[in-house]
Amino acid sequence: MNTTKPIQTAITPTREQDYPEWYQQVVKAADFAENSPVRGCMVIKPWGYGVWENIQAILDKKIKDTGHENAYFPLFIPLSFLEKEAKHVQGFAKECAVVTHHRLEERNGKLVPAGELEEPLIVRPTSEAIIGEMFSKWVKSYRDLPLLINQWANVVRWEMRTRLFLRTAEFLWQEGHTAHVDEEDAMKEVNVAVGMYKSLIEDYLAIPVIVGEKPPSERFPGAVVTKCLEAMMQDRKALQAGTSHYLGQNFAKSQEIKFLNNCGEQVYAHTTSWGVSTRLVGGLIMTHGDDDGMRVPPKVAPKQLVIIPVIPKQELEEQVLAYSKEVTSLLSKVSYADQPLRYHVDKRDLKGGDKTWQWVKKGVPIRIEIGPRDIEGRQVMLCRRDRGVKEKIQLSLDSLAELLPGMLEEIQNGLFQEAKNRLDTYTVTNINCLEDFQNFFTAKNPNKPEIHGGFVRGLWCEDEEETAKILDPLKVTIRCIPDGQEERIGKCILTGRPAKIEAIFAKAY
Amino acid sequence: MNTTKPIQTAITPTREQDYPEWYQQVVKAADFAENSPVRGCMVIKPWGYGVWENIQAILDKKIKDTGHENAYFPLFIPLSFLEKEAKHVQGFAKECAVVTHHRLEERNGKLVPAGELEEPLIVRPTSEAIIGEMFSKWVKSYRDLPLLINQWANVVRWEMRTRLFLRTAEFLWQEGHTAHVDEEDAMKEVNVAVGMYKSLIEDYLAIPVIVGEKPPSERFPGAVVTKCLEAMMQDRKALQAGTSHYLGQNFAKSQEIKFLNNCGEQVYAHTTSWGVSTRLVGGLIMTHGDDDGMRVPPKVAPKQLVIIPVIPKQELEEQVLAYSKEVTSLLSKVSYADQPLRYHVDKRDLKGGDKTWQWVKKGVPIRIEIGPRDIEGRQVMLCRRDRGVKEKIQLSLDSLAELLPGMLEEIQNGLFQEAKNRLDTYTVTNINCLEDFQNFFTAKNPNKPEIHGGFVRGLWCEDEEETAKILDPLKVTIRCIPDGQEERIGKCILTGRPAKIEAIFAKAY
Repeated sequence: MNTTKPIQTAITPTREQDYPEWYQQVVKAADFAENSPVRGCMVIKPWGYGVWENIQAILDKKIKDTGHENAYFPLFIPLSFLEKEAKHVQGFAKECAVVTHHRLEERNGKLVPAGELEEPLIVRPTSEAIIGEMFSKWVKSYRDLPLLINQWANVVRWEMRTRLFLRTAEFLWQEGHTAHVDEEDAMKEVNVAVGMYKSLIEDYLAIPVIVGEKPPSERFPGAVVTKCLEAMMQDRKALQAGTSHYLGQNFAKSQEIKFLNNCGEQVYAHTTSWGVSTRLVGGLIMTHGDDDGMRVPPKVAPKQLVIIPVIPKQELEEQVLAYSKEVTSLLSKVSYADQPLRYHVDKRDLKGGDKTWQWVKKGVPIRIEIGPRDIEGRQVMLCRRDRGVKEKIQLSLDSLAELLPGMLEEIQNGLFQEAKNRLDTYTVTNINCLEDFQNFFTAKNPNKPEIHGGFVRGLWCEDEEETAKILDPLKVTIRCIPDGQEERIGKCILTGRPAKIEAIFAKAY
Repeated sequence: MNTTKPIQTAITPTREQDYPEWYQQVVKAADFAENSPVRGCMVIKPWGYGVWENIQAILDKKIKDTGHENAYFPLFIPLSFLEKEAKHVQGFAKECAVVTHHRLEERNGKLVPAGELEEPLIVRPTSEAIIGEMFSKWVKSYRDLPLLINQWANVVRWEMRTRLFLRTAEFLWQEGHTAHVDEEDAMKEVNVAVGMYKSLIEDYLAIPVIVGEKPPSERFPGAVVTKCLEAMMQDRKALQAGTSHYLGQNFAKSQEIKFLNNCGEQVYAHTTSWGVSTRLVGGLIMTHGDDDGMRVPPKVAPKQLVIIPVIPKQELEEQVLAYSKEVTSLLSKVSYADQPLRYHVDKRDLKGGDKTWQWVKKGVPIRIEIGPRDIEGRQVMLCRRDRGVKEKIQLSLDSLAELLPGMLEEIQNGLFQEAKNRLDTYTVTNINCLEDFQNFFTAKNPNKPEIHGGFVRGLWCEDEEETAKILDPLKVTIRCIPDGQEERIGKCILTGRPAKIEAIFAKAY
């Protein structure tokens, strides 16, 4: 029995009580998204979509600054295209939306599919198959390389169990597709993408990541190398936040992406692909949300500051709104992270307290309440979402504009540091035997199975078959072989066999 | 027999010779898009997609500045949703992509659709059906109105005959969907959208439009009022460039979008929807292209200026590139239309002449060629795409940065004026009898049927049945009842019956 008096929070249940359910409630309370009547498909609401738009703007600039161009390819992929790359189809063609008809007809007062297609079309689960087909036409000579293309698009994978943002049948993403003269140039590209993602995810989303390479069994279907960025959520599970693949010449061979090299020979190109998706928004919520709702890092917040005019009596309305206007004219001159401050005055016909709680749950970084008393004192009452909900800071109007950029930066860095501490604390490196490993991933309290464990970093023998026998019952996977390892020789923490690389082991989304 | 010596042009055939084929050739030569192996679906290439991205940025800002928020809704619409609004389904559900299965299985070494869905899903041809469903959950009280939502998305309509950008099975667009307390507020919204579109299309795309209302038979399925913007292409046919619909309470009733008004009564909302699509890019090409390829108006050009270093001998390369760098450091300080100048140095390993012609065909507004002679003279040779291909302007380096914004504005305005003159010249208002009307729309030279006619503006009796008998054989339609008419009474130019409004008649895409 719980004897301590519970603190009332805006979100029920709390993270501690039921993390998966807490997540669903925060997504809803923060007005990020909701389930749609279409199985597995979500509706991304304006506040959540605003975060995605900021992610897009930040990443799109990086993509263009590194020499890539955006283009757009068909939503549909003819069935026969998928059959070309055998491994790829095994990985992807299983669960997908299949278009078989191109018309509806009324029969007995009901609409039924008609006009059967000669060849069914697949709604793209990823676009290697169709983009490669175009590349084979565009690439003729080494002068056409590197070919650096990116696409912002929706994709569909018929997932059986879906969860808002984290795993949905339809999701939004960008997919980079590039072709190169050789492996060296292609691998450079793979790392350029990883670099862009690391900066996006750490510097803007304030989510620390471990960068590494997937073991062979976890590679993208058809890839030679899959690099990834792994983040730790508050339940200490891993979330794959982005991937970048070196596809070798596998796709080039099945899709005939050939070119005349500078020795006059016809050779196959080396290709890459890389992507991040709306899943990042899920990772953002699971990293920064708390028991009162979401906390959005300032750099990706649709609004960084909201003004809530508090009008106790109708006759004071004009006065309060005039003062709000004075405050916004100051705010309009404030910049943060090289962009004008994004602020909003919430004039809705609602009680002040209701508004406050809505913005707390949405996670706007800074709230400013303006009431009649503030006018006299030429001041504002400011609340930071990274502090206690009732903690207010009184600021003079004179100092407000000057203090805001530093305050936003403090919030941004604070959220990152909090997540970094979690990642560091719960990435353990002192597990050396199987028993300790198994204990680490087994909940001690079966009534609270949600938050326990973390990442284990330890030596691994690279025998995937043996490893799977140990990991599968624990529902643990190898997240990556982290980059930047020094050479060493020791014993695999799972099998005791000789091992020379370290891996990250974790439960994952 | 043609006796004049033909001028050689970059595009064959010329507009005069075969306008539809000229269009296809320009789209290809300008590297805007190409057909994909997926029936009716196009690949939008980087230069064409760059134009679309600029259109998006311009319009998205207008959409947000007028209080709308972006969101994202599912790609799929359950079949039963389409059955709710009878007129809507008649107009839309006919030709569409139908998803009937959610898996592929291997049978006898071939992939076949499996996992039949209980209810087929339609790939959205437009999103009223799914967005309305969500609106019915979001709208409870008059305080929730107006609800102003926009979506950037891909949509699919299974067109039988497709043409790049103008009519493709899949296309990209934005669709605004709004709900209001009453007709007045909704009609205001319809006109807000029209205003945004007019500014986008005239001020940025440099395409003059006639704004008006569709006659009942041409309305969007389910709409009470459809407003539209009609442009004239160079073959003098009309292109519908954008539409904005007042849907009355039709969709609100079928979708149960109800709210408690300020008298405490449950009433149905009044809704609107409005959209423009990648079709605008087709309209841009058909308006501004010439017999040497495309001419992109500066405000939407992905690059407004390109520098082509001309290197006659290898040993001069360093010198020429150093001078190019000097030029770009000047350009980096230039702004046009409140944005930094978009320029590019084409360093590709290609002959100067080939590069020049590629950029002519792509329609970059200004080309600057830099050769060894220019370095001595501290000058550049500048070519404007709106002038003859061989016309070069010599400019001193000192004056370049200062002159560019004015020059770009001159090109922008010149393209608009050229199109405006065409619209004015070929919109005739002096046709008063049926015979003249029929002659106007009948090609005089059957060997050159492509460029003739134009718009007829004249009084119309509003009898759609009678009108259709005359218009259908001519393949002419009523494009709109133009806005801003003064009241008058006269005779219908088609039927001779009493008429009080003027209409625009034209052949159309």
